[in-house]
This record gives sequence, C-alpha cells and structure tokens, in this order.
Amino acid sequence: MDKLLLDTVRDFSRKYILPLAEKIDREDWYPREIIAKMGEVGILDPLHYGADLYDSMLSLSEIARVSGSVALIQDVQGELVNAPIRKYLGSGLSDELAQGKIIGSFALSEPCCGSDTRSMRTTARKEDGKIVINGDKMWITQGLYADLFLVAARDADNGKISTYLVSKGNCIEREKVEVQGNRGTGTAKILFSDCKAEAKVGGWEVVKYALAIGRIAISALSLGLALGAMEEAYAWASERNVFGRKLVEHEGIQWMFADSLSEILATRSLLETTCAAFTRDWVEAEPLISSLKLNSSRMVNRVVDNMVQIMGGMGYAKSTRVERAFRDARLTRIGEGTDEVQRLILFRYVDKTLHS
Amino acid sequence: MDKLLLDTVRDFSRKYILPLAEKIDREDWYPREIIAKMGEVGILDPLHYGADLYDSMLSLSEIARVSGSVALIQDVQGELVNAPIRKYLGSGLSDELAQGKIIGSFALSEPCCGSDTRSMRTTARKEDGKIVINGDKMWITQGLYADLFLVAARDADNGKISTYLVSKGNCIEREKVEVQGNRGTGTAKILFSDCKAEAKVGGWEVVKYALAIGRIAISALSLGLALGAMEEAYAWASERNVFGRKLVEHEGIQWMFADSLSEILATRSLLETTCAAFTRDWVEAEPLISSLKLNSSRMVNRVVDNMVQIMGGMGYAKSTRVERAFRDARLTRIGEGTDEVQRLILFRYVDKTLHS
Amino acid sequence: MDKLLLDTVRDFSRKYILPLAEKIDREDWYPREIIAKMGEVGILDPLHYGADLYDSMLSLSEIARVSGSVALIQDVQGELVNAPIRKYLGSGLSDELAQGKIIGSFALSEPCCGSDTRSMRTTARKEDGKIVINGDKMWITQGLYADLFLVAARDADNGKISTYLVSKGNCIEREKVEVQGNRGTGTAKILFSDCKAEAKVGGWEVVKYALAIGRIAISALSLGLALGAMEEAYAWASERNVFGRKLVEHEGIQWMFADSLSEILATRSLLETTCAAFTRDWVEAEPLISSLKLNSSRMVNRVVDNMVQIMGGMGYAKSTRVERAFRDARLTRIGEGTDEVQRLILFRYVDKTLHS
Amino acid sequence: MDKLLLDTVRDFSRKYILPLAEKIDREDWYPREIIAKMGEVGILDPLHYGADLYDSMLSLSEIARVSGSVALIQDVQGELVNAPIRKYLGSGLSDELAQGKIIGSFALSEPCCGSDTRSMRTTARKEDGKIVINGDKMWITQGLYADLFLVAARDADNGKISTYLVSKGNCIEREKVEVQGNRGTGTAKILFSDCKAEAKVGGWEVVKYALAIGRIAISALSLGLALGAMEEAYAWASERNVFGRKLVEHEGIQWMFADSLSEILATRSLLETTCAAFTRDWVEAEPLISSLKLNSSRMVNRVVDNMVQIMGGMGYAKSTRVERAFRDARLTRIGEGTDEVQRLILFRYVDKTLHS
Repeated sequence: MDKLLLDTVRDFSRKYILPLAEKIDREDWYPREIIAKMGEVGILDPLHYGADLYDSMLSLSEIARVSGSVALIQDVQGELVNAPIRKYLGSGLSDELAQGKIIGSFALSEPCCGSDTRSMRTTARKEDGKIVINGDKMWITQGLYADLFLVAARDADNGKISTYLVSKGNCIEREKVEVQGNRGTGTAKILFSDCKAEAKVGGWEVVKYALAIGRIAISALSLGLALGAMEEAYAWASERNVFGRKLVEHEGIQWMFADSLSEILATRSLLETTCAAFTRDWVEAEPLISSLKLNSSRMVNRVVDNMVQIMGGMGYAKSTRVERAFRDARLTRIGEGTDEVQRLILFRYVDKTLHS
Repeated sequence: MDKLLLDTVRDFSRKYILPLAEKIDREDWYPREIIAKMGEVGILDPLHYGADLYDSMLSLSEIARVSGSVALIQDVQGELVNAPIRKYLGSGLSDELAQGKIIGSFALSEPCCGSDTRSMRTTARKEDGKIVINGDKMWITQGLYADLFLVAARDADNGKISTYLVSKGNCIEREKVEVQGNRGTGTAKILFSDCKAEAKVGGWEVVKYALAIGRIAISALSLGLALGAMEEAYAWASERNVFGRKLVEHEGIQWMFADSLSEILATRSLLETTCAAFTRDWVEAEPLISSLKLNSSRMVNRVVDNMVQIMGGMGYAKSTRVERAFRDARLTRIGEGTDEVQRLILFRYVDKTLHS
Repeated sequence: MDKLLLDTVRDFSRKYILPLAEKIDREDWYPREIIAKMGEVGILDPLHYGADLYDSMLSLSEIARVSGSVALIQDVQGELVNAPIRKYLGSGLSDELAQGKIIGSFALSEPCCGSDTRSMRTTARKEDGKIVINGDKMWITQGLYADLFLVAARDADNGKISTYLVSKGNCIEREKVEVQGNRGTGTAKILFSDCKAEAKVGGWEVVKYALAIGRIAISALSLGLALGAMEEAYAWASERNVFGRKLVEHEGIQWMFADSLSEILATRSLLETTCAAFTRDWVEAEPLISSLKLNSSRMVNRVVDNMVQIMGGMGYAKSTRVERAFRDARLTRIGEGTDEVQRLILFRYVDKTLHS
Repeated sequence: MDKLLLDTVRDFSRKYILPLAEKIDREDWYPREIIAKMGEVGILDPLHYGADLYDSMLSLSEIARVSGSVALIQDVQGELVNAPIRKYLGSGLSDELAQGKIIGSFALSEPCCGSDTRSMRTTARKEDGKIVINGDKMWITQGLYADLFLVAARDADNGKISTYLVSKGNCIEREKVEVQGNRGTGTAKILFSDCKAEAKVGGWEVVKYALAIGRIAISALSLGLALGAMEEAYAWASERNVFGRKLVEHEGIQWMFADSLSEILATRSLLETTCAAFTRDWVEAEPLISSLKLNSSRMVNRVVDNMVQIMGGMGYAKSTRVERAFRDARLTRIGEGTDEVQRLILFRYVDKTLHS
C-alpha cells in the first residue's frame, strides 16, 4: 500500500473537498477548482503517475469518503477516459487529462438503450476522409463541461462499434440532466450533429477496457461512501444518548456496525483481488469485475441504509454526509452497467467456474 | 369501501396535486393552496366527516401515489393533530382543522431524544393559574406554518407527561430543518419560551392515541408511495425496449413486479385488519399497529428500490415520481417511531401472542 | 373465531400429536392412527362440518405448531382432495374422507413437469364406455397409503385436462420418495397403468379450485410452523444464560423475536383477508392467494431460521421442534406451486391492480 | 495455487468420497476408512506437509463439494486439533494426526455456555503433580471416536483457561448427539471425570489460534458446499425443460446463478486475502477472519437455498447433493463461533478501521 499517496489524498480530501462537499451537492455545483488543484498536486489520476491500480483505487475511495461527486469525477476523468486513451492512443492528451487541464467525458449510453449498449444508434460515417459523428448520448458525467469526448459510435458501413475522440465545438449541444445524487458532476445529454472526430481510438475493445476499469473505480467509490457514512454515524452514536445509554452501547446498534464492517472488509478484499487480476490480464478479470461491481454496490446501499437508520432524523436531514451518501450510493447499482448487466455477464462464467 | 370518496380523492389528486408535486419537492414549497382546497372539498380529513378509518387511509394512500408530501401533511393535520383533539377535547377547533383553516402541528420529538420520547425535557409549569411551556421540539412537520401546536410536555411538579394546546405567537421561534424527502411540509425545530398553554388536552394517553393513529396513517402513506412508483415504472417498462424486447417482457423484471405486487397486497390486507382492530379497541391494537408500521415501511423501501432499478437512469433522474418516492420512502422507517421503536413495542407482545 | 374448535384442536395437538411428532419425522412414519382419531373427533376436516374457512385454517395452523407432517396430511385430505370433491361431486365419499375412513391423494404433478402442470402427459382415454388413465405422477403426498386418487389427466382426444377419481388397485404402482421434511406423509411416485376412473369430477377448474384452497392451507401450515418454532425458542431463550444475562434479555435477540412476531401478525392478517375473499369469490381471490402463499412461505423460512440461530447448537440438534420446523418450512416455497409460479400468476394482476 | 494438490484432492473426492457421501449422511456413518485413506495419500492435512494455507483451504473446499461431513472431519483433524498442537507442542503426535492414525477432537464448548466460551466450567486441578480434568463438553465433532482430546479447562486455582491433552480412557463418557447436517462426524457430548491430562498445550492463546484457523477452515467448507450445490443444480437446470424452454434459459434462473457465482467469487477472494493475512500475523487477522466467517456462512446459505429452489422437488428429495448441502450449510452460521460472536468481535474493530 502506497502510504504516502493515501495520506496525501486523505489530507487533501479533508482540507479541500469536505468543506465544499455540501455546496457541490446542494447547488449542483461543478467543482472545477478542486479538479484543477488535484491535477496540480498530482492526485487526480494516480494511475497516470505509475501508481499501482489498487493504491489508485484506495485513493479514489478516500475521496469518496468525503464526496461521492468528486470521486465520480475522478473515476470518469482518470479511469473511463484517460485509462483507455493512455492505453490505446498514448498521446500527450493523457498528460493534460491527468493534470486536469482538459476535462474528459465518456460518451457511451444513449437515450434509446441505456445499459443495452450494443443497440446504440450513434453513427460514424466517412466523409471526405474525415469521420463524422451523429447521435445522442445520455447520462454523460462531466458532459456539461467536457473539452473532450471519448465517443462510441457505430460505423455506418459495417455496423461495428468503434471509439473516437471529439473535441468541444459548435456541433455539440448539451442538455443538463439533474439527478438525485453524485450531483455537481455535470451530468448531461449530449447531441452530436455532424461532429468531426479527431482520432479513432480503437474498436469495441476500448469500450470494454473503459468499462472494466470504470467498474473497478465505481466499486472503490462505493467502498469510500460506506466508510464515510460509517465514520459519521459512529461518531454520532458514540455521543448520542438514548434509552439510558449511549446509542453505540446498544447491542442492536453494535450488530449493525459489525455487519457493516464485515461487508466493508469483504469488499476491500475483493477490490484488491480484482485489481491484481486486472493488472495481470484485464480480459480474464471480467467475472471478478462484475462480481466486485455487484457486491460493492449492494454493500454500500445496505451499509449506508443502516447508517441512516442509526442516525435517525439526522440521517434524513440535509447537511449530514450520511444523507448525501444515501443518495450517492443508489447510483452505483445503475451506473457503468446495472446490476442486471453484471448478472448477464456473470452467468456466462458459471459453467466455466464450475469446471476450473 | 367508500367508492365515492376514493374516486373523488383520486380525481383531485391527479388534477390538482400531481401537477404541483415536483414543485413542492424541488422548491421545498409548502402547498397551502392545496390544503385549503382539500379542506373546502372535504377530503383533507375524511375521518372528521365520518368516514371509516380504512376508507380514510385508502384516501390518504391515493394522495401519496402522487405526492408523499401532501399525504404527510394530511397525516399530520388529520391524524396526528385532529384525531386526538376531536377525541379528547372535542371543540370547534376540530372543524377548523378539518377545513384547513387552521394548520396544526404535533410537537413531540425533541433534539435530545428522538424516538426516546419518555426522556423529553420540555416542561409545563403552573404560573398564576396558567400553564407555561418551555422547551425545544424537533422534526415538527408543518412546524414552520402551524397556527396551533399539540405539545407534549413534562409537568414540572410530578414529572408526568401531558399534552397541551399552544397557539402561534411571539413565544415561539421556528427554525427550518431541510430534509431529504417529503419536502415542502414545513419541517422545523420549534422553541417554546414561556408559552402559555390554551388548554390541557390530556395525559400520556393523548400521545399514545396520536401515535397509534399516526402510525396507521404513515403506513397508508407507504402503501400509496409504492403504488405510485409501480404505476410509473410499469408504464415505463411497457414502453421501453431493451435487449430485443419490451422491458416488461423480461422474466427477471416480471418477477420484480410480481414480488412488489405481492407485498403491496399483503400490506393492504394488514392495513385493513389494523384499521378494524383500532376501531374496535385502539389500545389492544398496539401490536398490529407496530407490525403494520414495520412491514409497510420496509415494503415501500423495497418496492420503490425495485422500481428505481427497473427505470435505471430515469429512476435516478429528477422529475420522475420514482426518484421522489425513493427519497420519500426512506422517512417511513424513521418518522412516527423508528423500526427500532416498533421492535421494542412488539417484543412485549411475544409471550402473550404465543399463549393466545 | 371459533374458540371451541381452536381449543379442541390445540388440546388434541398437544396431547396426541406432539408426543409422536419426532417419531413421525425420524422414522418417516405415517400416523394413520392419529388421522383416524382426528376423523373420529371431527377435526380432520373442520370445513366439512361447516367451519368457516379462516377458523379451519387456524385449526390447521394449530396442528402445524406441533407437527408440520400432520398438518400437511390434513391439508391434502381436507383441502386438496375433499374440498373439490365436496364441491364438484358432492357424494358420500366426502363424509368418509372427513372421517378419515378413506385416505385421499391429489395426483397432479408429474416427473416431467413439476410446477408446469399444463404440460402434463398423463392421459385419459375412452375405452368401452370407461375412462382409462395412464401416466406417472410425482411428489404425491399420502401417495403410499391413499385409497383414492383425485387425478388430473389430459383427454386423449381433445387435449383438455380434466380430473377423475381412481381407487386403489392393481393398476397402481407406488414408489416411495424420501424427502427432507414434512416426513411421514407417504410421499410417493405413482404410476397409473390402464386404471379405470370411477368418475369424472370435472375440468381444469377442479385443479384450480384444489390449488386455490390448497395454497391457503399450506400458508396456514407456514403460520403454524413459525409459531411452533418461536414458542420453543422463546422458552429456551427465557431460560438460557449467556454473556452474563438471559438470552432473551439481549437486545439483538429481542429484535429477532420482534421482527418474527411482526411477520407472523402480518401473515395472519393476510390469511384472514384471503379466506374472506375466497369465500366471497374464489376465482377473484387468485392474486391474494398467490400473495399469501409467497409471503407466508418466505415468512416461515425467515422466522424459523432466526429461531434456529437463537437456539444455536440446540436448534441444529435432532429432537428439537425448531430443527424439524427448519426442514419442514423449506417445502412451503416449493409445494403447491413454487415461488416462481406464484410470481407468474401475480404478474398478470399488476396492471389491473394499478387501475383498480 | 498448488494445481497438483488440488487435482489430487478433486480426483480423490469424486472417486472415493462422493460414492459414500449419501451413506455417511443417511446412516450417520463415520467414514473411518476414508480418513485412513486420506491420511495415507497425504491429503488429510495438507498444511502439515507444508502446503500454503490458501491451497490447503481450497483443498478442503474441494472435499466439501462432495461431502460437508468429510470436510468437517478434515477441518477438526487438521485445523482445530493438529494446527495448534503442531504450533504449541510440536510433538510426533502431529505426524500421527496428519496420517489419520490418531483421531483428534477439540473440546471447547460446554452445555452451559455454547459460544460464550469464557464462562466455561470444566476445571483443571493439580493433584499429586498431575493435572486432573473434570467437566462436560458439548457439540464435540469426532467426539464419539476421538483417541485424543485437546481440552480447554479453567485452572481451579487462578481461574485462567488453558488447554490440555487428554487421551481416551475410562474417565471419559461419550454421548451421541444427533444433528441435522454434516452427519457421520461423530458429534458427541463428552464427560470428563477425573481425567489425567498428558500435557499442557498452552494458555488461552491456543484456543484463539485453534478458532482462528478453524474459522478459516469452516469458511472454506462453506465455499465448497456452495460450489457443489451449484454444480448439481446447474447440470439439472441444463437438462430440465419447463414452460417451453430449458430451465437454464429462463432469465430469472440465470440471475439466481449469476448472483450465486458473484457471491462465490467474492468469498474466494476474501478467503485468499484472509489466508495471507493469517500467515503474516494470525492475531492481526482477527477482523478479517470474522468477516470471512460471517460472509461465507451467509453466502452458502443463500446460494444453496437458491439451488434448492432451482431444483424444486428434487432439491427437497433425499439423494440429491443439494438437499444435503442445505442441511450442512446451516451449521456454518452456528459452529466455531456463531454469527453473533463474529459480530461481537468485529464491533471492536470498527473504530480502528475507520482511522486506519
């Protein structure tokens, strides 16, 4: 474990992110200044600077402890966008993304199809030696502010899906989409009308790679949300008196904390195993990744739900981290492949696992 | 079943409440005009006009289908405040409450103690033949706008808890408390400083009666939220195509709907049984009420969670009923006695039930 | 509530069934003598003697508190077999069944198809003015000992399914099927080879009627199993000292009991509502019946599982009621229509419920 | 991963254990001959022969796929008994245990106290330079057949708990205790009357060490049970036709398999992490061990329950592995520290985890 990285990120989070976390949520405020500062300090994309994947994920998790929104931004910027660009394109763009000088979005989902990405309608068409992109994308994190889009589109000729880079410009229309949690991340619907792609990044494997690493990242986000919520609720329960004792002295409450810790430790273990597997062979890691995504997102929803219950009215009141985490957590069972999509993937591995 | 009442309420809800439901939530906007109109039409407090308790609860449930907030207002106005006043005081106040001319609040919880109501610190002290109330109350629905407070306070002399009426006035300070769901209901912290009580309503039995009927009402609210969410999700799933078929044609999705319906039917049955038991003998109905509260609040959280999952990103986006219901539903496991308080009550009946 | 019936059944159960319950389970021993005695006393089939359906079900539930096996026998004898015979045939057979002079089985499931009853292969063929039955039936309770079979078979000519009476005889081969719980009920595979039917009882509606009332009965059985397990575990927890206090004084354990009671009360309410609905119009009651079946079978599995946990090693040791109930309970999610079949049925009512 | 060890164990299991697994269960038959053969082949206690802990656990898991009973025997023989003896005594006894020439039992639980081991009453008293043991022990696996007992007893002088070796002999009385699952393991109540200890193994740390490694072992057993059940159910679902398609082609069934696989992968990951942590520092590994125990035992109960449901009546019929696994699995939430004991331990680590 890269103790230095983690300490740096933890200090940064508590000092610079936590004080703004409520504003980000309440005002749906995109924290460009935090991103810039993280870029400067070198913690916006630890992977880019050679950090181990697991350390990088623990770092993302530290951020999620104080703000699911900033963690989601890091996930998109570093994992969904920069990781595939670094791997498949390897340009200087990658440095600028890691420094937060360019804001990137991953444009995959569409209004028509959601998790059924294979049905996408956005097209890439050759025209005068250029590739021209047309279509609508939905649920695009950072979409409102992105300078650069990594766009998945279907080749008008052969029907295959590839990925392209598209820069901001007049051909792009952005519509704000307001969501329940992880607010302030600039979620948008993006309409591409005859946009010229700057480069082709690669084929479907780029989407698969982005989703693979993105699913690990959102799992790390889940872990952090759970820890952050538990931190607040544990402090509360240690102070609060009820029915003649500290709340934390009630056996029923202790069991809630114990069960939550149990799930958190299990998730951290699975995260570590999955990071190692991804690093060895990302394609082979697919079932582990889906298991991690499914387990971690359920874990965080259960844990945060328990923490809300422990805090009672306070857990339901604006201004607590637990209240925010409750809304943030719900995204993790939908975003970057729903539970149902993970099941679809996992089912394919049942037979093989039984015989390995 | 009073078909006329239900039809009236359903029509009213769809026509006058649904179009404002999003505004109520988004702007934390207290819908005084809706309350006034409901008062005029005679559906703000059906119980007052002789409706059967179960019919009255189905009516509240109809409102919750379109707005948890308005349903909660009706719960407080009609059940938590007016029902005990009508029973224990029987004054003309009751008519005015039913007509929505007076807004009432039930001031029981305190910042110190939450669900541990027996530890309350608010005092009632005799002074020059008057009763003077001092103390802080928390999580008071309609607190920001109430004309009249039904206040529980501890007798400074004998330590017993009684209930009093306190009218709005300078002795009262109100602080807004912003919450996650059921917004626009004027939730507040209320500080009473040397407030003169207008009347004593009764002893601890008034609190018990208010909670008994209030817990039935919040269960009806849960039922309505679940139905409303299912209604929207079912319509969505009937239109949405995914992986080559309508969403609603997927077996996994059908099972979610079936499980949800199963729970809804069970809750409706328990609501009916409990209303009948309450009407026969409200004291004896206590274990049924706690069972109803516990079952219905879990039911609505599970059902709405499933409906969010079915709608995917749309279920997480502002402007859908499902997104709102998800936040509204979480209150039901906290308000009017947490899950843990219901368990405390139920445990006392284990032995007796086994031998009856 | 028919207090006299219930008291009679309770006394009978404790006196005559409980002492044999372990033997029935351990030795897979069919308690013909108990059935005979119940027949004599008039409690084998209360419905036959004019008892209200709900009272009859509470009576069955009392028996399940001490023996799931005897309750299942009563369910088959009284509900699955005699109820449809009484309704559709109305012969004197019905008296003999109620008196336990004739043992009856309901032969519906087949090895091929389990819950997918519509795919059955057993045929009914006209031959010389007689109806001749051929086919294999599976999971037939009391099959080893039945004098009379109510058999569902497909008309060799028109493919429609009807129901027939077949008496014991040489054309019938019986193979014992040993199962996990509800043992001693004579579960068997039955092979009909050119058996002559004594009468046609009716069409598919007879199957539907038998399943409708049978599903209510197995739900009552679930209720009884849960109560019986809680009874034993509560007595145990009231005596047992652990970590310095009675087990029952631990908050975590109290919550388990409270949650269990909460579910039991909810199930009893749903049972009552469903019995009333069935009595009014059994066809219309279908969604309630499936909800009852689904809810009650899950309830009993959760409740008994908790009771095992409370009793620890003792709950896992042979000779406790809880150990037996744990195995008995598992059947209820499979027999008389699996969970999945109930969901299939319930899904058909989603749309209608939303608009009623 | 030690592929050779795993392949050897898998072959052995399928060839020699599987054909006897039903007999072991049905007849409560202690498979001494299998133990002897495993001892000969060198797979009864891989740890003894230098296998890595994780490999050793995967090996135990392979055995549990075909027989929970034999896996439990290996757990007791190798982990609960031989591991502490090897570590704290290091005598030649250890070789004999690994070879299966001596059968060992771990005598910790008592009738009085179950999981509350600190309250034990068995005493160790000095008498003429010998240590004399008196007391009753309960739920002792292999107790009926053990040649050697590792006994925990309280020093009559200072009240501290230590562990001793006691050999079979006249001072020992054995009473069979029949249990629901993992049958054929010789579970017994053991009464020690003035038994002379042969050696003192060590203090309370020996108990802690035995439980630490034993809890890892029972988790591996859970993993194996789950895999074995899934194996059988998947084969069944791949053949079985229902409602017009293979069972395995139903989306709802696929989701059950996918969820199960997801949990199995997560458990395997946690097992690996925990083994590594134990090997590094077994005392520090305590929270991970409790998390593993809690997660794995819940996992196997959920997974096997789903597999029973998938197989329907067959999953409830004797002779299927799934039926047996359902009963075997239930032990894992009770044995070697109940869920509640794991929670007690985990709660102590909440604060520390939050600040690490």
